[in-house]
Amino acid sequence: MKVTLIGAGNVGYHLGQRLFNKKIKIQQVYSRKHSNAADLAKIVKASPTNDLSTIDASADIYIIAVKDDAIVEVAAKLAKNKRLTKKIIVHTSGSVSSKVLAEYFSNYGVFYPLQTFTKGQHVYFKNIPICVDAKKEKSQKRLLKLGKEISKDVRLITDKERAVLHVAAVVVNNFTNHLFHIGATICKEEGLDFDILKPLIQETAEKLSRKPPYDMQTGPARRGDQQTIKKHTEYLKKFPKYQSLYTLLSESISNTYS
Amino acid sequence: MKVTLIGAGNVGYHLGQRLFNKKIKIQQVYSRKHSNAADLAKIVKASPTNDLSTIDASADIYIIAVKDDAIVEVAAKLAKNKRLTKKIIVHTSGSVSSKVLAEYFSNYGVFYPLQTFTKGQHVYFKNIPICVDAKKEKSQKRLLKLGKEISKDVRLITDKERAVLHVAAVVVNNFTNHLFHIGATICKEEGLDFDILKPLIQETAEKLSRKPPYDMQTGPARRGDQQTIKKHTEYLKKFPKYQSLYTLLSESISNTYS
Repeated sequence: MKVTLIGAGNVGYHLGQRLFNKKIKIQQVYSRKHSNAADLAKIVKASPTNDLSTIDASADIYIIAVKDDAIVEVAAKLAKNKRLTKKIIVHTSGSVSSKVLAEYFSNYGVFYPLQTFTKGQHVYFKNIPICVDAKKEKSQKRLLKLGKEISKDVRLITDKERAVLHVAAVVVNNFTNHLFHIGATICKEEGLDFDILKPLIQETAEKLSRKPPYDMQTGPARRGDQQTIKKHTEYLKKFPKYQSLYTLLSESISNTYS
Repeated sequence: MKVTLIGAGNVGYHLGQRLFNKKIKIQQVYSRKHSNAADLAKIVKASPTNDLSTIDASADIYIIAVKDDAIVEVAAKLAKNKRLTKKIIVHTSGSVSSKVLAEYFSNYGVFYPLQTFTKGQHVYFKNIPICVDAKKEKSQKRLLKLGKEISKDVRLITDKERAVLHVAAVVVNNFTNHLFHIGATICKEEGLDFDILKPLIQETAEKLSRKPPYDMQTGPARRGDQQTIKKHTEYLKKFPKYQSLYTLLSESISNTYS
């Protein structure tokens, strides 16, 4: 299996390196910015380009790892090369339907690594779940096989399921990170070191491997400790936006156990 | 330094074991329920009791690790033994002022391990920050010394600072866990395996060791991707309570970067 990577951002970068390390041949790397394409191409021994019209038919699978709102535009440009239209073409997005590729390609699908990537920061790719789908069953099999080369957790996930997973991922990742930011902001305001909360945060995440979060809930809202909730709400008067979040989240916890 | 432990719940249990493992002598273990006192006392080679009037003056430091709303009552009962009123007496609460002990003891303070504990589940106590305070400077030093025996991160934290830390701890621990529960609920509703989100959750927490959460924020609200936010909000119609949380958290993220 030979792969061509369209996109050298966070996902393309990590995915490309992992594929290369697992001896998957990468033919071409595209990025709008030539230097980005060149940087990644150098690592994965591929040829770089910043011109979609130069993407050739030498690969078996084309992975579009660009921003959500650029997927259709990129697909349209790729499809101008008629030799590509029957290739397996996938995107890596959590929230975009695979169908957006259907207008241009008959053999389309999705190859979505369910993780948050930051350029230059190592992740254990082996543990990253990969959600695969494809219009054709034969392509599903090939994508599952490609996934298994780089991850121990590869699953067939439909468009509808992936859309739901993306909502849940926003909740457990984006919103959680924002709560960390709120914690950091409160500490900063008071001249306290946010580091003191990091072991607690680690443990909160690690506990999940042992029990469901429902069983793990602690805190004033879980206990119905109105006195503490009142004290905290009073304190948060200096952060009005966070105060309403505190109230809504406390109510939501309280409702969960009443 | 000899310690007597008042309370054999989650905090008392973990703290007692850690002190014992670090060769701190534990004299007595109290719990309302005799079997709880006996279980922990057996492990830490102390004598168990379920009667506060039998707590003797053989220890140097008395650690009250009971529920917040029981601290005052327990303190009042202990103070009936006049030989205890000049001992170092601390509680382990994140949210209760040390002053509640002042009515009964001249040498009071706080010994607050900033972590979430679950009985029967191991924690790396060495990494747990311990927030110490005491009315008398000499006692502060003794409590810092005790803390350093069992943790690498011991800090003098005032009542006011501890109150703020507790608000931040509720945000980054209790609320975060509730978001995990929401993610799990959404998955369950759709017949999806919540496990698929766990590597993402782990990484969200681990990233904190590298960069502040402000720099780590990703997702539709961060990007201003209204189309995805709208799609998610539509989907969450089937969970109206979560829908309003989704909206408020998205707005809060959006405000943070505008």
